Amino acid sequence: MSRTDAPVLRALVLGSGGGGGVPQWNCNCRVCRLAWAGDPRVKPRTQSSLAVSADGERWLLLNASIDLRQQILATPAMQPRGEGRRSPIAAVLLTNTDVDHAAGLLALRERQPFTIWGTRATLDTIGANRVFDVVGRDIVPRRAAPLGEPFEPLPGLKLELFAVPGKAPLWLEEGEVKTDEIGEGTVGVAVEAGGRRLVYAPGCARVTDDLHARIARAHALFFDGTLFADDEMIAAGLGEKTSRRMGHQPVSGPGGTLETLARHTNVRRVLIHINNSNPILIEGSPEETKVKAAGWEVAWDGMEVRP
Amino acid sequence: MSRTDAPVLRALVLGSGGGGGVPQWNCNCRVCRLAWAGDPRVKPRTQSSLAVSADGERWLLLNASIDLRQQILATPAMQPRGEGRRSPIAAVLLTNTDVDHAAGLLALRERQPFTIWGTRATLDTIGANRVFDVVGRDIVPRRAAPLGEPFEPLPGLKLELFAVPGKAPLWLEEGEVKTDEIGEGTVGVAVEAGGRRLVYAPGCARVTDDLHARIARAHALFFDGTLFADDEMIAAGLGEKTSRRMGHQPVSGPGGTLETLARHTNVRRVLIHINNSNPILIEGSPEETKVKAAGWEVAWDGMEVRP
Repeated sequence: MSRTDAPVLRALVLGSGGGGGVPQWNCNCRVCRLAWAGDPRVKPRTQSSLAVSADGERWLLLNASIDLRQQILATPAMQPRGEGRRSPIAAVLLTNTDVDHAAGLLALRERQPFTIWGTRATLDTIGANRVFDVVGRDIVPRRAAPLGEPFEPLPGLKLELFAVPGKAPLWLEEGEVKTDEIGEGTVGVAVEAGGRRLVYAPGCARVTDDLHARIARAHALFFDGTLFADDEMIAAGLGEKTSRRMGHQPVSGPGGTLETLARHTNVRRVLIHINNSNPILIEGSPEETKVKAAGWEVAWDGMEVRP
Repeated sequence: MSRTDAPVLRALVLGSGGGGGVPQWNCNCRVCRLAWAGDPRVKPRTQSSLAVSADGERWLLLNASIDLRQQILATPAMQPRGEGRRSPIAAVLLTNTDVDHAAGLLALRERQPFTIWGTRATLDTIGANRVFDVVGRDIVPRRAAPLGEPFEPLPGLKLELFAVPGKAPLWLEEGEVKTDEIGEGTVGVAVEAGGRRLVYAPGCARVTDDLHARIARAHALFFDGTLFADDEMIAAGLGEKTSRRMGHQPVSGPGGTLETLARHTNVRRVLIHINNSNPILIEGSPEETKVKAAGWEVAWDGMEVRP
């Protein structure tokens, strides 16, 4: 960014789907069937990732999904420029260690300098898996960001991490599972550039007062839209877990997102990290109609938001 | 396979590229520039994986790349059938623990039963990284296959693993790197169904007498086509390693694949696991012309071979 260019906050949705994407590799549920068939009512979606920038040149990825290579192929702003090897992806921040948020690091090999950000707990969990060393620590530093302390990973782009209720990733679940832990395991991100602000929280088990306050100060919100109904997976015969057991506040129902975040009518509100079972993925469905009527948008791959 | 159907060996190339695919996320080398620009001389390629079947219904994947979700989306034979969750992918075998061969396991979550095969050494290395536990061990068993002992992972589909010279994966490199080790770290696979045979060796540092004998008995060969010239990465300014340092016998030059495998004129020979820097990826290039004149084919995504 040259000194004369004022920072402008841009957010590009690389992946709007939850774990597995849409369609999911092994699934023929109602939404996936339409997606496999190419029905225009269901847009295919890759897995959860949001790119943000203050200058449109250097980008920070909020989470890196296993679909990242495909997302780069689909997004000119993420493609290398000039001679040799030079990617506009300058940093990656992980909000937790779910596979759908972290596995994309493995796609960022090939001796490209960038920085990996996360809480200390997130970096420790990643660090315990040597496979991630394929992204060479000598040229890709890992930097811990403390909760509640602003930092500037790229010039003009200010971030602050904050704890949101969540649970340990599936691959670390052991014994009794706490689905409403507040700590460094699951975080939301407040992003600011040029005086404009967005909040990103793709996994959130419950809305805290702190989150309410942060949303109220923001111009845009990207929020956990994993499941529409708490018992959605069970009702569809796809699993035995409720949305809350998975660490995700459902969109609908008592204590759901439409209800708990209804007050934030001045903020552009976008549902992201949407699971393949979620009927809001079917354009024109009663559920999609309902979330739109409540003032929400449903994220899609390639969506750009300038808060 | 019903009792009346004779087994028929089929091989589907899901991914013909080497690590990073074509184009590679951060690369503007000669081949990648053409690929980014959509030049018809360079086919885009996903990363290394070959699906084999004896009945066309149940498939075993030889290696699972990080592009696997995209490969399934592009390949009707790999997509779920019927109601609910039912994938035709019944097994995955890893020939080593390179990220481009193993990371795709992380795309096979979602409570789908299948079997992971590999040498004991390969399974131990994977097992030391808890992130792979996202593929639940309770419904996805991991089974070790001893070298040189035939086994039948799917009805009618017979496999045998054999050691080929190779090196430890990049993410486990420490101290002095042995590039020509023979053991359980890197294996080739002999596949047989209905009396037809193929050999698959996507990473191979040197051709042994054992490999010669196996190729001579086969009807098709899929062989390491990573780099054309030993010094290709250095000459292109993309890296400091020779092909042999990377554990891959180069295609051309003294002791290269065209020379060492020239005798096997009765076998259908296909180069696979082709790095983005390799000029054989440019159709009509002198290098592609040379390998074709020597009797080789260049694998492409979607290629089907019935040996």
